[in-house]
Amino acid sequence: MQVLKNQIDSHNESLLLQHEAKLSFTRSEVPGAEEIIQKLTAFQIAIPSWALGTGGTRFGRFSGGGEPRSLEEKIEDVGLLHALNQSSGAISLHIPWDIPQDYRATRILAAQHGLTFDAVNSNTFQDQPGQPHSYKFGSLQHVDKTIRQQAIDHNIEVIKHGIELGSESLTVWLSDGSCFPGQLNFRRAYQNTLESLNEIYAALPDNWKLFLEYKAFEPNFYSTTVGDWGMSYSYVQKLGSKAYTLVDLGHHLPNANIEQIVALLLMEGKLGGFHFNDSKYGDDDLTAGAIKPYQLFLIFNELVEGMDARVMNHATDLGWMIDASHNVKDPLEDLLQSVEAIMLAYAQALSVPRRALEDAQQNNDVVTAQEILQNAFRTDLRALVAEARLRAGAALNPVALYRSLNVRQNLINERGLKTVATGL
Amino acid sequence: MQVLKNQIDSHNESLLLQHEAKLSFTRSEVPGAEEIIQKLTAFQIAIPSWALGTGGTRFGRFSGGGEPRSLEEKIEDVGLLHALNQSSGAISLHIPWDIPQDYRATRILAAQHGLTFDAVNSNTFQDQPGQPHSYKFGSLQHVDKTIRQQAIDHNIEVIKHGIELGSESLTVWLSDGSCFPGQLNFRRAYQNTLESLNEIYAALPDNWKLFLEYKAFEPNFYSTTVGDWGMSYSYVQKLGSKAYTLVDLGHHLPNANIEQIVALLLMEGKLGGFHFNDSKYGDDDLTAGAIKPYQLFLIFNELVEGMDARVMNHATDLGWMIDASHNVKDPLEDLLQSVEAIMLAYAQALSVPRRALEDAQQNNDVVTAQEILQNAFRTDLRALVAEARLRAGAALNPVALYRSLNVRQNLINERGLKTVATGL
Amino acid sequence: MQVLKNQIDSHNESLLLQHEAKLSFTRSEVPGAEEIIQKLTAFQIAIPSWALGTGGTRFGRFSGGGEPRSLEEKIEDVGLLHALNQSSGAISLHIPWDIPQDYRATRILAAQHGLTFDAVNSNTFQDQPGQPHSYKFGSLQHVDKTIRQQAIDHNIEVIKHGIELGSESLTVWLSDGSCFPGQLNFRRAYQNTLESLNEIYAALPDNWKLFLEYKAFEPNFYSTTVGDWGMSYSYVQKLGSKAYTLVDLGHHLPNANIEQIVALLLMEGKLGGFHFNDSKYGDDDLTAGAIKPYQLFLIFNELVEGMDARVMNHATDLGWMIDASHNVKDPLEDLLQSVEAIMLAYAQALSVPRRALEDAQQNNDVVTAQEILQNAFRTDLRALVAEARLRAGAALNPVALYRSLNVRQNLINERGLKTVATGL
Amino acid sequence: MQVLKNQIDSHNESLLLQHEAKLSFTRSEVPGAEEIIQKLTAFQIAIPSWALGTGGTRFGRFSGGGEPRSLEEKIEDVGLLHALNQSSGAISLHIPWDIPQDYRATRILAAQHGLTFDAVNSNTFQDQPGQPHSYKFGSLQHVDKTIRQQAIDHNIEVIKHGIELGSESLTVWLSDGSCFPGQLNFRRAYQNTLESLNEIYAALPDNWKLFLEYKAFEPNFYSTTVGDWGMSYSYVQKLGSKAYTLVDLGHHLPNANIEQIVALLLMEGKLGGFHFNDSKYGDDDLTAGAIKPYQLFLIFNELVEGMDARVMNHATDLGWMIDASHNVKDPLEDLLQSVEAIMLAYAQALSVPRRALEDAQQNNDVVTAQEILQNAFRTDLRALVAEARLRAGAALNPVALYRSLNVRQNLINERGLKTVATGL
Repeated sequence: MQVLKNQIDSHNESLLLQHEAKLSFTRSEVPGAEEIIQKLTAFQIAIPSWALGTGGTRFGRFSGGGEPRSLEEKIEDVGLLHALNQSSGAISLHIPWDIPQDYRATRILAAQHGLTFDAVNSNTFQDQPGQPHSYKFGSLQHVDKTIRQQAIDHNIEVIKHGIELGSESLTVWLSDGSCFPGQLNFRRAYQNTLESLNEIYAALPDNWKLFLEYKAFEPNFYSTTVGDWGMSYSYVQKLGSKAYTLVDLGHHLPNANIEQIVALLLMEGKLGGFHFNDSKYGDDDLTAGAIKPYQLFLIFNELVEGMDARVMNHATDLGWMIDASHNVKDPLEDLLQSVEAIMLAYAQALSVPRRALEDAQQNNDVVTAQEILQNAFRTDLRALVAEARLRAGAALNPVALYRSLNVRQNLINERGLKTVATGL
Repeated sequence: MQVLKNQIDSHNESLLLQHEAKLSFTRSEVPGAEEIIQKLTAFQIAIPSWALGTGGTRFGRFSGGGEPRSLEEKIEDVGLLHALNQSSGAISLHIPWDIPQDYRATRILAAQHGLTFDAVNSNTFQDQPGQPHSYKFGSLQHVDKTIRQQAIDHNIEVIKHGIELGSESLTVWLSDGSCFPGQLNFRRAYQNTLESLNEIYAALPDNWKLFLEYKAFEPNFYSTTVGDWGMSYSYVQKLGSKAYTLVDLGHHLPNANIEQIVALLLMEGKLGGFHFNDSKYGDDDLTAGAIKPYQLFLIFNELVEGMDARVMNHATDLGWMIDASHNVKDPLEDLLQSVEAIMLAYAQALSVPRRALEDAQQNNDVVTAQEILQNAFRTDLRALVAEARLRAGAALNPVALYRSLNVRQNLINERGLKTVATGL
Repeated sequence: MQVLKNQIDSHNESLLLQHEAKLSFTRSEVPGAEEIIQKLTAFQIAIPSWALGTGGTRFGRFSGGGEPRSLEEKIEDVGLLHALNQSSGAISLHIPWDIPQDYRATRILAAQHGLTFDAVNSNTFQDQPGQPHSYKFGSLQHVDKTIRQQAIDHNIEVIKHGIELGSESLTVWLSDGSCFPGQLNFRRAYQNTLESLNEIYAALPDNWKLFLEYKAFEPNFYSTTVGDWGMSYSYVQKLGSKAYTLVDLGHHLPNANIEQIVALLLMEGKLGGFHFNDSKYGDDDLTAGAIKPYQLFLIFNELVEGMDARVMNHATDLGWMIDASHNVKDPLEDLLQSVEAIMLAYAQALSVPRRALEDAQQNNDVVTAQEILQNAFRTDLRALVAEARLRAGAALNPVALYRSLNVRQNLINERGLKTVATGL
Repeated sequence: MQVLKNQIDSHNESLLLQHEAKLSFTRSEVPGAEEIIQKLTAFQIAIPSWALGTGGTRFGRFSGGGEPRSLEEKIEDVGLLHALNQSSGAISLHIPWDIPQDYRATRILAAQHGLTFDAVNSNTFQDQPGQPHSYKFGSLQHVDKTIRQQAIDHNIEVIKHGIELGSESLTVWLSDGSCFPGQLNFRRAYQNTLESLNEIYAALPDNWKLFLEYKAFEPNFYSTTVGDWGMSYSYVQKLGSKAYTLVDLGHHLPNANIEQIVALLLMEGKLGGFHFNDSKYGDDDLTAGAIKPYQLFLIFNELVEGMDARVMNHATDLGWMIDASHNVKDPLEDLLQSVEAIMLAYAQALSVPRRALEDAQQNNDVVTAQEILQNAFRTDLRALVAEARLRAGAALNPVALYRSLNVRQNLINERGLKTVATGL
């Protein structure tokens, strides 16, 4: 299944008049619209290979159909997304679920879809068939050096796969922690983890980054050894200049002010990137922007301000990735919705008049500061996001085109109804 | 200080061209815009008398200036708001802070400002000077019947004041509860409270409603005797057909799905009304829509759907009130921002295509259902809200006019810099 | 694998002197110790059939060995627990995981282990192989009557199995809800669920109870159709006198005061029973008493007070069940720890001097009320719990005996290392 | 009002037999009881001067009587507590509420009561009468250097008072933060705060410590500039070796694992001390151990383990202080209950068999690790705490003696019924 250029063109043609009217009005309302469009065009969000199948919970999983059965089909799926929105030009692999059989062929296939390889992800939260030692009681934190070594070696192997594919970063998410008081000595768990991370860090090429993700809870329900931004920060400080903290929006305690965390990590030069999703209760892994779109905007507001203050390249100096689960939606539709919500929040943040906001802050004019942010959020900038797609050769309305092309049915016809992708 | 018609006209004139361009574009995008504008015009949000001064916390209070020193000045302040937005045509009094000296004069003053009297509020969470018995250990729940009787009598007296002013509802918010395990027998606290409420209910005129507000915590930090919607619901069921639950958006445990609660109370015929505000952590009493605007929209989405299903009058069949605190803003500006956010959420909810949403729900098409709600929320409907104001003779941009008229400075000149309004 | 009487006797003999010294001291400290021991002896906690295997999360599962492969082996496992503590004399089955092939043989087997059949549990949160319709979008709430009927029929079939085994209650836990705003019409979901429950209720024998469990979130992450105690209460009120609310300790929003909910449900005559476990973040399903033992005591404090006020039989008038998951422990050891913690909390609650507490409450003597509860909790009552076991022929230290008998190794030898029990 | 030695003796005599029986039994159960008693004797918990009056909330305050009217009477109150428990041998002053008029006289008075001066506390969360600049928009974070300087100068003045009294630490708790998105530039607020702290740090004597407290929310309800342990840690790292993080148990987001934070801060050499209290919802400031006593024990478990690992002196190398509010209790009784709960948790932590716990952890024997901690917690060690008091000349049951001596009535007689202590 491929989306052809003429299918996109014909879709766009049918929506063009309406789009242009809306764009024209938006331009009249938003100073700097052209610059925003250009930044949106440059902005790419990586798709994780494990988000292409139906998600599940510990209570069960209700599979959809036509899920990708191989790394090649996963690349094809991301290629489909990218053809539709030209904003998903990277794929993030998960080892061992996605071990390439032939690096060159894999690279060529990705290139044909216009995709690069984003961060590679290691997996030490599950036992693989035939694995000598179990991660039941942790991996990099484990009391037994043999098991830590197995996990270290796995991470180094992941780096090697990444090098072959042209990745330049390793994301380490550890489920290491404990379920009961007394189970762990927190200090030793920290020190073991640090020692293990140091070994992995030593294997990192010079042009690579190590992203250390934190998470408050799940699958461990008493403590997590990289449990909050402060812990991740303390590790990456010790590891060195190539180590950064990765923020997953769903990995916090209730009510956390994530935008402040983001601003401070940026200030410290230790923000590495993002796993986007949304949530109401815990790590719910819902579609980005589906529950708290204003929070998503506020986070981008800090990102734009903070990256500009450090003269960073928005598109390339941080890692942008989705990490969601799709229990009740077609995964590809869900990903299209997530990308749209992220692009919209980015556009809104770009439209904030920085100088005016700064003035309001300098004068403690809280009412005006709020008005400025709310105005940026309430203004409808979807035409700018659509225009960026249009210019890049993508669809004005990706979800609508996806549906009108019967993509899912085509995938089912090709792959079958009962396929189950690896992942969560 | 009064806002004159010609001041509003001149303000509107200066913004008219821009407004009309925006309105025209919005009309082209939103089917039924005219009907939405009419419903917005009819919609009035009551202002609580205690929200006209600077708020504080237990750690202190940083007063602003020009705060109203009397009931008359409070009415004047609400009159100012109403002149600016024509959407704040009611005031909600708090007894004993606002006991009228002369009912007739008070009614006439309010009428001159175009205001009616919304729900009257009793206060049994503080001791007043000279009060025979203390509410330290509760009021309607108290183990001592004498103290319960004092609180009952106070509520009946509040009803009497309300009758004289033309109010038609009593809001009962109880801080009753406990700070420590063992302090209360929960069952007896419930039964005492129910017995007390029954006596108050008996004093209620036939055309009145009793609103029973619930709150999860604060100022009691272990239990609250009307602690969640389920408890309030169980009381009002027993009290009778004039008793309803009142929802304050800040009175829930973390992550509560308030919109579902609202839908179910409406279904049961037991939703009485709202105290609007916003919050991140607890009962933070921030400006409505300042933190979670999508949640506010989702709540209105349930309200519109549910009220229409019961053929209710949006404007009059529920009580709409703000209950916020203004620690770092000019209270009047804050209230203008709250009203704007509420009107906008209402407009968005009105614009939801009900039939299409229902179809999506019938088909379990979660992606489309989300698109429908997000489209309503992302579309900029501020021009409809502004048009409703324009037609009603109010300002296109109330906050801007308030500032350009130097209202606060005028109030300070009239009333002084060090005035402190009664309230929280 | 069976635990023999002489093994228990010899274990007890080795600990007897120490036990008697401790018991004697405890008796000297606790008035009414004898009565407490007798009530503890009568108290039985049902073991759910799905808690006998290693639990997992959506991220994976680390199996132990020797897990029961059949209903017969599950009964055997509960029999082992009951032999060790004589407090686990019931098993709660889950259909379709535990459909008996031969009712009579199953009943006889259970009786040989001294077990009765507690509540039977239906399952409409997973699709079973060959099932005509999917529960992906709910079961009793489903927009499609055909699917609701399938779920209704399943529940009625569960009742039938229960009747054959001598159960007298049906526990309905629904994962029904939604993951995204707009997905559900809350009102219709409620009404569909109520209609479905009514059909199930109609099939309930006269001497049966229906327990309707509520849960705040998971596996749905936006709304749950029976989401809190208030919702469950509103359903069971409408269903009739055989319908009750079931409380699972892990099914609440953060910081909920569960003991107050318990007291009010008891007051209303609508508390049906419990699923015991403990948690820090969500439905963590940890060992009872492992995280918040004081809360567990406070809940029992309300239970004892409230049941006595209604002259209820502690042992039989409510359903007592464990519902936990054992990701990092031997499930049988975990269950022994849970039962011990529950018995201890019950003993502490029984030891509270009711009259003194009531006096303190009457006098608003908060300090004394706290002292009374803390004294009950801080006093070491483990000897009373042990004595109850001793008198019933169980082990003084069940976990120690379990280990010294190498029960797990024996089960592995019998059943194999790679068995995986049905369950979560 | 003073508690006389013979009053204590006579109280102790009446309880001695019972105490000795209990002590003797406890000794038989707990290895190392004697060492525990000695450590308990050495352990002192500072009483904050602002906790001696009735607390309140933003909704009101229900005063008790006999509250201290001056610094001298506050010292007298702490002296009373210390006479009763010999565990409260320090007072922590709050400037400007407690500015001494005569240092020498104040020191002598304290010495007469056996008290030393613990950390001094600055106050930049309220405006004082006559203060030139307002802290409405922050103090050390303020956008205006003039206001920052005022706050810096105040802190330096507090240090000077402390030097005169023999204090050796400054506690800085900042309410600085924001109530609305956009109000603050997080990065600049951080940098201003850091710059201000640097100036204060420069004024710190060599033998002093600076404690930087963090708090998630309240009185600011959107962001707090020192908002969590990670932020505090990042500041104190930059400040230098005399700067430490201070942990207040109520200053976290819901469900935080405080014991892990404590363990990691200790590991980093950056834990400074504690503000003890308990809470269910937010910074509820309830009596220590009143809500989550097991958590309090788990925190002490980390403290004992971690301090021993660093060969620290339990009594002197960290700052131990209560910070609670007493809305419904006699403040002095509440403080006695808090001290008792803290001492008990410390005793329990001391009784944990470290080697056995370590072995269980090394073997991933989660069940045994839990048993070890639960055994320490379930064993009744109150006799050891009482014995420590007895040996130090304090009362076996401080609350009981306080009541039998009618201390509160005496204080009312001396000071009056309507006194209101400064504080919260």
